Amino acid sequence: MNANVTPFACGDAVCAQNRIETFIRSTVFDRPTLVLDRDMVAQQYRALKAGLGRADIHYAVKANPARDVLEVLVSEGSHFDAASRGEIALCLSLGAHPDCISFGNTVKRASDIAFAHQAGITLFAVDAEEELEKIAEHATGAQVYIRLLVGATGADWPLSRKFGCTPEMAEGLMARALELGLTPVGLSFHVGSQTRQAEMWRDTLDQVAAVWTQARAKGYPLSLINIGGGFPAFYGEAIEPATIYAARVMEMVEARFDGAERVMAEPGRGMVAEAGMIAAEVMLVSKKSEDDLHRWVYLDIGKFSGLAETMDEAIRYQFATERDHEDHGPCILAGPSCDSADVLYENRPVMLPVGLRAGDKVIIRSCGAYTSSYSSVGFNGFPPLDVVVI
Amino acid sequence: MNANVTPFACGDAVCAQNRIETFIRSTVFDRPTLVLDRDMVAQQYRALKAGLGRADIHYAVKANPARDVLEVLVSEGSHFDAASRGEIALCLSLGAHPDCISFGNTVKRASDIAFAHQAGITLFAVDAEEELEKIAEHATGAQVYIRLLVGATGADWPLSRKFGCTPEMAEGLMARALELGLTPVGLSFHVGSQTRQAEMWRDTLDQVAAVWTQARAKGYPLSLINIGGGFPAFYGEAIEPATIYAARVMEMVEARFDGAERVMAEPGRGMVAEAGMIAAEVMLVSKKSEDDLHRWVYLDIGKFSGLAETMDEAIRYQFATERDHEDHGPCILAGPSCDSADVLYENRPVMLPVGLRAGDKVIIRSCGAYTSSYSSVGFNGFPPLDVVVI
Repeated sequence: MNANVTPFACGDAVCAQNRIETFIRSTVFDRPTLVLDRDMVAQQYRALKAGLGRADIHYAVKANPARDVLEVLVSEGSHFDAASRGEIALCLSLGAHPDCISFGNTVKRASDIAFAHQAGITLFAVDAEEELEKIAEHATGAQVYIRLLVGATGADWPLSRKFGCTPEMAEGLMARALELGLTPVGLSFHVGSQTRQAEMWRDTLDQVAAVWTQARAKGYPLSLINIGGGFPAFYGEAIEPATIYAARVMEMVEARFDGAERVMAEPGRGMVAEAGMIAAEVMLVSKKSEDDLHRWVYLDIGKFSGLAETMDEAIRYQFATERDHEDHGPCILAGPSCDSADVLYENRPVMLPVGLRAGDKVIIRSCGAYTSSYSSVGFNGFPPLDVVVI
Repeated sequence: MNANVTPFACGDAVCAQNRIETFIRSTVFDRPTLVLDRDMVAQQYRALKAGLGRADIHYAVKANPARDVLEVLVSEGSHFDAASRGEIALCLSLGAHPDCISFGNTVKRASDIAFAHQAGITLFAVDAEEELEKIAEHATGAQVYIRLLVGATGADWPLSRKFGCTPEMAEGLMARALELGLTPVGLSFHVGSQTRQAEMWRDTLDQVAAVWTQARAKGYPLSLINIGGGFPAFYGEAIEPATIYAARVMEMVEARFDGAERVMAEPGRGMVAEAGMIAAEVMLVSKKSEDDLHRWVYLDIGKFSGLAETMDEAIRYQFATERDHEDHGPCILAGPSCDSADVLYENRPVMLPVGLRAGDKVIIRSCGAYTSSYSSVGFNGFPPLDVVVI
């Protein structure tokens, strides 16, 4: 193991991270492979739960639907947030109880709502009248929570306007839900993925609490607040330890949501990102011209084979190599496909060892979330990202 | 069939396009499905070949690696441009001769070069010294063509700086190839995907011809010019008919590349895009607030399930519905996943019927290229894009 590799800054995780790195360094891979550590998933569940206290953790399955990850979380007592019929079926097949699964996508196929209802799922997300009508028809009497569209926060992967309705519309949807025989039990929102500091939640919580308080004052019997995801992973910039972060968020929640008998949280990235690293390989190092300031480094993994979150250079992964003791220089990093859009970092180049060459192994850290499931089925004839669990 | 659906503007293709539309309108799909027409692939091959004349067409397999597409092209006599070992193996398994396959990715794994060499492939793309060294080691005596980095053109999907070396470096690579026992046979370049008018090739051809002429004057025995792809498909903006477009490009090529015994062209999009349409479905229509100017329309297919080329709204697909006789209004179009980046068109909204609602079928035209192979393995629990061939 290379002594110059910077250990992870997040305390308890250092030893476990090194377990994955040690495995990758001592193993030969014939294609890009995500290595996941089951123990780290369990540890992170416990760390988040310790801070979230009475809140139910509904793991966002979309972050990493690997069977091993879900099995660990079922055994830890986690609940689940499912985005589709496929995810619901997967959770049920691994022993999750239907009472512990929420159908959290606000955009659902009618037949999938019916499937969920028949499977015993009773809690659905909604942000539009047409969705309420579909739920009323296919999941009679279900509980719904209204997803709110909240103002921008400081998240590294801020959310678009895609999900949620404005606070002004929320009460109208509650009234319509009642007319349709549904039970509007609460509100949900999302602060934005990778919200690095708990303090960044404050403004959003204030906005949501105002809607909550007003709706309850008007007689809507809200009892559930779903605080969504946003729990961060370590990508090189300091984050608060998971338990402290979660506890601070919960403290702000408890101070604002009177009558919230039930609190839900939906960590995805914050649960599994640090539990995985990708074993990759350098395919080529080149310069475009003799006087080029930057080298181009091409890896065997790119935007279409697992690293989709490099879109707009939003998520900046960390890299380790066997040459980390050498001098470093700026590189433009690209994937292996013939697609010109398959460039990972160009606006902000990455510092990599000057001696890097084709065939060198590269470890990409904190890759446990939003990688394997984003991988394309076979773009350019490359197989999907492989997954190994240790 | 709805009489108000605008027929395709590209002449002969209208009837065949209608064959796919008719099939989609009369079929029930339980998930998003790409419907491909074998006959249209054959027709387009013949149309391009009629214009390209003596040039060898190396179909860019990455555009659509469906077995049916490759089988049709093998039987038509097409050659193939492969991006990976996987694509080479696929072409060989369907009867393509190794002499007709070029390994066109400038970024190749060493073991894949060895595989190609053993399979009898003799022609490789290169744009860097380290790549030449890999080829010399694993494919002794191979022919190589040097990919040039050319200036920006007017393409709808312009290429980044990812591929190619500057003209100044090209001769150095030819000299290095000779030192390594390789044969530098020619040059390649790419005008940019979806270059709508043949005339847009002129400047690029001038740039490349200058390198060609100078290298030959210095004694490099160049005999192959690979003009790459860029051949357009119809996405709503006028394009020249394929034969006329190809003939105009070839005319410009013939006027510039003295001694080019061999000309290669690599259409991908231009070969298969119009031969496929996607059958999709509306999942939800909503407004974010009472006074929202735009409706949000959510489809069952998005950026991560086949429509990756909507990235930055670059490729603008055309849509047909059963309500095309109704008034239309602006919509923001989004995919079904819980990913906030899964929005297809927002900056330039799409005009869709005002009565559109959940459950309505939507036909997305010219989807035969760069869709199915981009689809994720199962992001959010949604299965990959299905493919049906008629």
